[in-house]
Amino acid sequence: MKSLRNLFEDGLRDIYYAEQKILYALSEMADAAKEEQSKNAFSLHREQTEGQIERLNQVFKMVGQEAKGKACPAIDGILKEGQEMLNEYGDSPALDAGLIAAAQAVEHYEMARYGTLVTWASQLDLGEAADLLDETLQEEKLTDDLLTQLAEEIANPEAAESQS
Amino acid sequence: MKSLRNLFEDGLRDIYYAEQKILYALSEMADAAKEEQSKNAFSLHREQTEGQIERLNQVFKMVGQEAKGKACPAIDGILKEGQEMLNEYGDSPALDAGLIAAAQAVEHYEMARYGTLVTWASQLDLGEAADLLDETLQEEKLTDDLLTQLAEEIANPEAAESQS
Repeated sequence: MKSLRNLFEDGLRDIYYAEQKILYALSEMADAAKEEQSKNAFSLHREQTEGQIERLNQVFKMVGQEAKGKACPAIDGILKEGQEMLNEYGDSPALDAGLIAAAQAVEHYEMARYGTLVTWASQLDLGEAADLLDETLQEEKLTDDLLTQLAEEIANPEAAESQS
Repeated sequence: MKSLRNLFEDGLRDIYYAEQKILYALSEMADAAKEEQSKNAFSLHREQTEGQIERLNQVFKMVGQEAKGKACPAIDGILKEGQEMLNEYGDSPALDAGLIAAAQAVEHYEMARYGTLVTWASQLDLGEAADLLDETLQEEKLTDDLLTQLAEEIANPEAAESQS
């Protein structure tokens, strides 16, 4: 019979797969972005992602499981929309606004998953794992706030100027 | 040249498609959930979704566009994971914990999209549309908080009890 412990371990594998995909996507987004500040935001998020993967490696060790991913159709779909944004708005001044929106969809997916994992880890008396996962959750929330600020200050006025 | 206005209208179509899919998925989740309180939470969210679609119809009218959806691979992927949860945990006491996690991934996707749409509507001086979209955004945040509470109070202790 599957239990909360199975849910927790499946959840770890889901987000482990997602983080690897996100790592790759953020490099592409940093390359594609037009504004320096957007490029920097995506590069910073990429560095954070490396640290978040390292924390997941530690959590897998804590629960005695091999660190490995499990296909996650959710992140595949979210990143596919980011790719469509690049294809459709690649030449547009609205590109950065679109890329930031795509990155925020990624952030929110991570917030949902890490939020759940923190709750489950606490429920399973895995306090140390809960703390590590919560560090990542707090980072994600902060990054999402920074992206909102960036969208309001830079990318959107830039995109609105292109109105005809 | 594509502009912020195009981004906004594409975003409306993306979430319009997503809401229709969510409407259907929430019915399935309400049917499948084991606990009465989970069933009620999913049913309530389903009713809210109907109101949110009605608000989107109004926003489409405000911007002079036909209300229609645009395929959204992100929500398709997120809901696919919910379906996998049903298949893998259908017989487990941890099912409700898993379904709530799936519903929170949906909530977060909606928060990301509505958050972006509110910002873009304001930037485009579509104040009335921004207000309507913000009503939905606030509903989503509240529902997410309620689901967190439900997970902590009911579904997870239920699932943890099944530990062997």
